[in-house]
Amino acid sequence: MSNIDIFIWEFLGTAVLCLLGNGSVAAVVLKNSFSHGGGGDWIVIVLGWGFGVFAGASVAAPSGGHINPAVTLAVAISGGVPWSSVPVYWAAQLLGGFVGAWLAWAAFKLQFDAMEDNSGTRGIFCTSPAIRNAPWNMVTEAIATFVLILWVLVNPPANEALGYAGVTFVIITIGFALGGPTGYAVNPARDLGPRLAYALLPIKGKADPGWSYSWVPIVAPLIGATLAAGLAQILPVVASS
Amino acid sequence: MSNIDIFIWEFLGTAVLCLLGNGSVAAVVLKNSFSHGGGGDWIVIVLGWGFGVFAGASVAAPSGGHINPAVTLAVAISGGVPWSSVPVYWAAQLLGGFVGAWLAWAAFKLQFDAMEDNSGTRGIFCTSPAIRNAPWNMVTEAIATFVLILWVLVNPPANEALGYAGVTFVIITIGFALGGPTGYAVNPARDLGPRLAYALLPIKGKADPGWSYSWVPIVAPLIGATLAAGLAQILPVVASS
Amino acid sequence: MSNIDIFIWEFLGTAVLCLLGNGSVAAVVLKNSFSHGGGGDWIVIVLGWGFGVFAGASVAAPSGGHINPAVTLAVAISGGVPWSSVPVYWAAQLLGGFVGAWLAWAAFKLQFDAMEDNSGTRGIFCTSPAIRNAPWNMVTEAIATFVLILWVLVNPPANEALGYAGVTFVIITIGFALGGPTGYAVNPARDLGPRLAYALLPIKGKADPGWSYSWVPIVAPLIGATLAAGLAQILPVVASS
Amino acid sequence: MSNIDIFIWEFLGTAVLCLLGNGSVAAVVLKNSFSHGGGGDWIVIVLGWGFGVFAGASVAAPSGGHINPAVTLAVAISGGVPWSSVPVYWAAQLLGGFVGAWLAWAAFKLQFDAMEDNSGTRGIFCTSPAIRNAPWNMVTEAIATFVLILWVLVNPPANEALGYAGVTFVIITIGFALGGPTGYAVNPARDLGPRLAYALLPIKGKADPGWSYSWVPIVAPLIGATLAAGLAQILPVVASS
Repeated sequence: MSNIDIFIWEFLGTAVLCLLGNGSVAAVVLKNSFSHGGGGDWIVIVLGWGFGVFAGASVAAPSGGHINPAVTLAVAISGGVPWSSVPVYWAAQLLGGFVGAWLAWAAFKLQFDAMEDNSGTRGIFCTSPAIRNAPWNMVTEAIATFVLILWVLVNPPANEALGYAGVTFVIITIGFALGGPTGYAVNPARDLGPRLAYALLPIKGKADPGWSYSWVPIVAPLIGATLAAGLAQILPVVASS
Repeated sequence: MSNIDIFIWEFLGTAVLCLLGNGSVAAVVLKNSFSHGGGGDWIVIVLGWGFGVFAGASVAAPSGGHINPAVTLAVAISGGVPWSSVPVYWAAQLLGGFVGAWLAWAAFKLQFDAMEDNSGTRGIFCTSPAIRNAPWNMVTEAIATFVLILWVLVNPPANEALGYAGVTFVIITIGFALGGPTGYAVNPARDLGPRLAYALLPIKGKADPGWSYSWVPIVAPLIGATLAAGLAQILPVVASS
Repeated sequence: MSNIDIFIWEFLGTAVLCLLGNGSVAAVVLKNSFSHGGGGDWIVIVLGWGFGVFAGASVAAPSGGHINPAVTLAVAISGGVPWSSVPVYWAAQLLGGFVGAWLAWAAFKLQFDAMEDNSGTRGIFCTSPAIRNAPWNMVTEAIATFVLILWVLVNPPANEALGYAGVTFVIITIGFALGGPTGYAVNPARDLGPRLAYALLPIKGKADPGWSYSWVPIVAPLIGATLAAGLAQILPVVASS
Repeated sequence: MSNIDIFIWEFLGTAVLCLLGNGSVAAVVLKNSFSHGGGGDWIVIVLGWGFGVFAGASVAAPSGGHINPAVTLAVAISGGVPWSSVPVYWAAQLLGGFVGAWLAWAAFKLQFDAMEDNSGTRGIFCTSPAIRNAPWNMVTEAIATFVLILWVLVNPPANEALGYAGVTFVIITIGFALGGPTGYAVNPARDLGPRLAYALLPIKGKADPGWSYSWVPIVAPLIGATLAAGLAQILPVVASS
């Protein structure tokens, strides 16, 4: 597959992912929408993001449906894509996250305008920890990404007919189980792309983009992915079934 | 497939869709039912509509399971059905939406009668925006439909065994993520058919059918579908994988 | 398949169904359990019953996974099982519902004992209408069952790999959309079997078993099934695709 | 498959299961996380544990995806694994549960530290009954495990393409329907492993590990599994289809 093809599909898929994911948080944060105030906010966010992975990864299927730099890194370590393609994947994913966030903003533009106070709207786009402590925030994000990548690399043939529903179910459980402390980026592009968008979007009274924390949801998922890919490399040697 | 066959299956499928979708909103809006007041209203609506697509599209499978004029338009642009069949699809879908809404009313007839004030029941049948502004309402509906149609047109072989569960998962994430601002018609027949039914239904003290807004959930989904179909036409040329 | 085989599998499957379905209502009705008071009660009930159909129908797969006299009736009309087997199916399903309800009671025995007032516990086992009006209650139950049976009879090959997840998704949307007014029996055995159990169970201060309404969730589903089976008989003639 | 292979896969799968399951309870119990206070607590727990089974069992697929001593016992009774492997499975599952609990604690470490009172955090890791009464608690756990194991042993070919989504759906309905009274261990390793971890974890002001109850979620699931495996042994004789 050519680099142009990779770029197009990963861009489209990550844009769809972040449009749907950012929108799912906007659905419960922003007032004056039918989704606000209905209860079960965390469920709306987790299922919205979860099935958003189904939509996004399906769209990016021709390039492998990565839509996440941590996945691309792990696949490269495993020999699934050449290292020369990694920067193409990453650039496309980042741009996709950026554009998807703009579309989510456009879909909720009237709601943003109607908010008296937009200082709490950053969480629609990018993550921040519930309790700030960089080392432990790293631990949370690395563990969550480790589970995701381990599943991606060892997902058995029994699940093959599930297609992209398989990774969707994994993202849903990661969201419910491990999303609370840091907002589960588990994907550098899903965090940095929309964060850049938030920095530029015309939202009155918005908060700062939180740059001082922004490296955590980039570095920690890549560490988690590397650990999982390393484990997956060793497993066939130890478990020579 | 003959036009009569197309009409029958699309009519049945869209009737099932709108019966289940309208019913899911009635479930949380109307008092004096076991589904009222249980909490998680937006989740009930989104999952009810979502799995309603599974039921409706399954029933309409012989004619392609469109049950949505925007899908039919996109499939026609893509060469999947002849243009001469499009009016047949559209008429059947519209009539199906109309009949499905009547059935939903019949299922909740006692609840409608027991409401002291039915002025808020229009939203059971057809959409209206949380904040009215036609251009931006168009943007929201067009973006949501664009995602749906893009997925329909590029849905990869990996998801084939999911059958109509695939589009169900996409509708669920669209509902959670993008449904709040305008009620996510993303389907002209699903909006106009039940709106016509609401105008005729014997509901005491009902609101006006909201005709002044009714063109938005017709035009915007068709625009979103056209944009997605156009993109899908261009993609194979650019991405010649 | 012998009548003994039919009886065994349908008995087991319907017992599993009613154990899980009755349990899902007990989960939100009875105090002093971890599932009580968590919010989203209607969602717990609908998803519990829905995936309960997955478990029950899977267990009864050797005999066709009916676990519902209305399904058996429709399949018999369609020529799928001989009429002579229908009483065997029905008896097994009824006994299964009865035993499943006893198991659900046993699982929540301590919670029943701890309730100060058990007059509201009948709804754990069998249905009653939110607003009583036999003709319109019949309409609601008949419409809901019609949708279920129509789907069962026309479920397309595209959904084949979903196995019993397909009917699960349909039951979930029927629950959300149409369950509120009458509690969606849509299955005579699921209602009569547990109702008989409730009449006999040692629950202090329990309500009467509601026999005066009990014919509705028996007759209406059978009418809805007959109408759907009749339609399915006619469809191939009209739609000769 | 060698015992080392069995140990590795079952250890990894059960660790993933307990990390995600324990995390899902932590998500609603611990304050100062985004998942706390959103409503629908029981739904978060049941869906988090349920899809956690999908992730865990998928990872353990090479060794059969047991991740539960009760499943291993039933499979051994059914002749699916040699009795000599059972202790290996059980040891791996227990250690996996222990390590998974530590990872869940690490992911929420800051939240544990910020709690004023950690006396209610034992339920994050292991089960205790809502109303204590060992015999009836045994009944509840045995019934729930019986349903799980019966499904595992008779799961029909129609569900084959669902892969590990099938058992996920069954665990979800068991959680909703039967989880309330005792917290649905239905898995000795999932309870004892995290209980051991809780006893050792550095959580200030934590409760005692509840050893006096700890034998119930070990013994009762094994009884339920034995009964289900026994029934499954008899069924083919009686029902000689």
